[in-house]
Amino acid sequence: MSDIIEKALQFKKDHSTRFLDELITFVSIPSISTDISVKPDMHRAAEWVAGQLQNLGLSRVRVMPTAGHPVVFGESLEAGKDKPVVLVYGHYDVQPAEPLGLWHTPPFEPTQSGENLFGRGASDMKGQVVACLKAIESLSISGNLPVNVKFFIEGEEEIGSPNLSAFILENKELLASDFALNPDAGMLNPDLPTITYGLRGLAYFEVRVSGPTQDLHSGLFGGAVHNPAQVLCELIAGMHDQQGRVTLPGFYNRVRALDPKERAELTRLPIGEDFYLKQTGVPALFGEQGYTSLERVGGRPTLEVNGMSSGYTGEGQKTVLPARAFAKISMRLVPDQVPEEVYQQLISYMKENAPKTIKWEVIKMASSRASITDRNHPAVVTLTRAMEDTWGVKPVFKREGGSVPVVGQLYDILGIDSVLTGFGLPDDNLHAPNEKLHLPTFYRGIEALIRFFGYL
Amino acid sequence: MSDIIEKALQFKKDHSTRFLDELITFVSIPSISTDISVKPDMHRAAEWVAGQLQNLGLSRVRVMPTAGHPVVFGESLEAGKDKPVVLVYGHYDVQPAEPLGLWHTPPFEPTQSGENLFGRGASDMKGQVVACLKAIESLSISGNLPVNVKFFIEGEEEIGSPNLSAFILENKELLASDFALNPDAGMLNPDLPTITYGLRGLAYFEVRVSGPTQDLHSGLFGGAVHNPAQVLCELIAGMHDQQGRVTLPGFYNRVRALDPKERAELTRLPIGEDFYLKQTGVPALFGEQGYTSLERVGGRPTLEVNGMSSGYTGEGQKTVLPARAFAKISMRLVPDQVPEEVYQQLISYMKENAPKTIKWEVIKMASSRASITDRNHPAVVTLTRAMEDTWGVKPVFKREGGSVPVVGQLYDILGIDSVLTGFGLPDDNLHAPNEKLHLPTFYRGIEALIRFFGYL
Repeated sequence: MSDIIEKALQFKKDHSTRFLDELITFVSIPSISTDISVKPDMHRAAEWVAGQLQNLGLSRVRVMPTAGHPVVFGESLEAGKDKPVVLVYGHYDVQPAEPLGLWHTPPFEPTQSGENLFGRGASDMKGQVVACLKAIESLSISGNLPVNVKFFIEGEEEIGSPNLSAFILENKELLASDFALNPDAGMLNPDLPTITYGLRGLAYFEVRVSGPTQDLHSGLFGGAVHNPAQVLCELIAGMHDQQGRVTLPGFYNRVRALDPKERAELTRLPIGEDFYLKQTGVPALFGEQGYTSLERVGGRPTLEVNGMSSGYTGEGQKTVLPARAFAKISMRLVPDQVPEEVYQQLISYMKENAPKTIKWEVIKMASSRASITDRNHPAVVTLTRAMEDTWGVKPVFKREGGSVPVVGQLYDILGIDSVLTGFGLPDDNLHAPNEKLHLPTFYRGIEALIRFFGYL
Repeated sequence: MSDIIEKALQFKKDHSTRFLDELITFVSIPSISTDISVKPDMHRAAEWVAGQLQNLGLSRVRVMPTAGHPVVFGESLEAGKDKPVVLVYGHYDVQPAEPLGLWHTPPFEPTQSGENLFGRGASDMKGQVVACLKAIESLSISGNLPVNVKFFIEGEEEIGSPNLSAFILENKELLASDFALNPDAGMLNPDLPTITYGLRGLAYFEVRVSGPTQDLHSGLFGGAVHNPAQVLCELIAGMHDQQGRVTLPGFYNRVRALDPKERAELTRLPIGEDFYLKQTGVPALFGEQGYTSLERVGGRPTLEVNGMSSGYTGEGQKTVLPARAFAKISMRLVPDQVPEEVYQQLISYMKENAPKTIKWEVIKMASSRASITDRNHPAVVTLTRAMEDTWGVKPVFKREGGSVPVVGQLYDILGIDSVLTGFGLPDDNLHAPNEKLHLPTFYRGIEALIRFFGYL
């Protein structure tokens, strides 16, 4: 086995320039899943992944329709029954690139600068998908793969995977496997390989407030009606108390407390307040009192305004009293919160607090539960070894503030655990302008995956 | 004199179709002063007005540059020294037409439907400017005009007339006159001619809040930083207290109280709570406790959010923690509030209430003082008679919630009073989609102006 791995590592070394070229081609496709105008690009991205799987000689390669964007599948089960079947999960869709004006290089013209490749999706997560593809390609040059793999690459992760659960239900046999490898979780710094054992869930809403039937002149009517923008601000302001806690009724009822042992372990991670200050550039940190930033991000639920708009927002001034206002508001959830209950809590809050001077509605958008993975899972143990052999240090284990709906769905429907890792870095500007991928870490990631698949 | 007036009224009757055609041409020019992309249209609108003045045979007709959009001037001083010189003020610029999707007909393709003409600027105030032009044209057919007039038509009223004060200062001789006629104030209903004696002032700001150096992933950083959208909401929510009063420190210090006599007079206007409910379509009215809606709109200062924006506001969802948020916020002022003091009050409020977790700034935009006009001014008395002879009822006197900066400037610089009236109606959708002009009232307005100029 070590011979196969050595050959694969040498192959990877010899073909690193081509690997990068292929990544650049992939990142240049603007596969923005939330933007209905780029549907052809979504198909191009899916076909690009399918082409890669075909070149690897995988079987049952297909681009499979869903009610939304398609799923790409392909498998190799030649390693024999004594080897596990690994479901390699990934997504080929990316976040919108707005605000475009803040990018230093065009988001869909991937540009190498120093050790980084800049482009939307380079880190989240086309780089991670390509790392998996290239690890398998490197291993395949010795003949049959040393492990059974099924690639399962979706196109709706960035919009909350609305059709994924139905897809998994309808394709249980196709996706059947021993565990999932999910490289969408990232590392703490380039020298610290990381395995993520906890993920937050998500409950995403749009809150709409309306007052007058149309925009009014703020001089002729200001003083007679309740300004919907003001009402929305008052409602949002009331969603947190003085201690930074969320005020929705019952919000904390099901929150699993961080136990003292886990809190002690988290203090060993190299993620202090300085880390968050430096990463964000804010004048001072802020959050729920009684917890460190790391604890709040990984182990406590939060409520954020993701966007809001009302009235005139263009250049100059307009003396308008807006007819309506809306905010996109989402909660990050921890075990054992239930998204549907959070929706009911938001509705209760609105019923209790919205004044009679306006009308309101709450639109439900994506939701997913939080998850916790077993740290003694054999695949976690193997990945730990592969990472240590690559970086020379043991990986750290962390809880992640982001949400990966598929983890819960794979557990609920297929009964499999997910091993969460990845080679993105905290300063990769995920979901922001100037997203980038650190190329030395990308290449190390391929090495680690070669070892991981080889050791299994 | 009554012969000249009778001939003029007949001329107006005979040419009403052409008058409307000319108004349609004027309204079809998208002269949006806040939109720098339509500068050529601003010049077209100014030239259209100048062409009208030339056709009337006025002298010294010119389109005069300012630091912003030009002023149109033209005069006729043939009536002799025993007649007053009337400065006819107007503006040829209009509000932006957004949101375009809510218009039933294109905003700059004026469309007649029943008794109304729909189009941006039809009522505010191209219709009013055309009414003045056509009254003068109708009187001019008998030879020399019976009154001295100077037309003074600006192009920046909808952006707060930033260059008007400098223009008036530089052209004191040109503009010298006995009083100004300002038909930008409107009527209460089609059967109730109205003279406005009080106007609110304006102080308009943009409040900007910024936190992280760029948009963050709401999962990876939610819990560590203070969301700028949430901070902005908290700041805006705090700008009013439970009684609907503005909380900026010292905001009410200079507010001239409504005396019992004036409050009693205001109750005689046909503007009750029903009026505001019907005009706005809100579920319930709202404002400072202890006052009627009419009193609040005309005689009390207010603070409104005119627009706000933060983060992702497009279709679908984006799990972003926004780097910044802004709101356009303006205060309507009453005598004797001073805009510069209100700016200082806003700064004080921000200093006292903005948390250290974010950075903020306040951008000063337009400002103007409130004004009160003498109800015994001879021109007011003459206009009262002209209106009564046209509508058969005495006009009512009211205080207006809107702001007309030029009124204060003409008083301060030229020492002249303004007579405020107009033929726009409360349901004309000023500053909103589907702005319209009620044509029977427009024609009656021309009649009233013919009488007014004739009686002077």
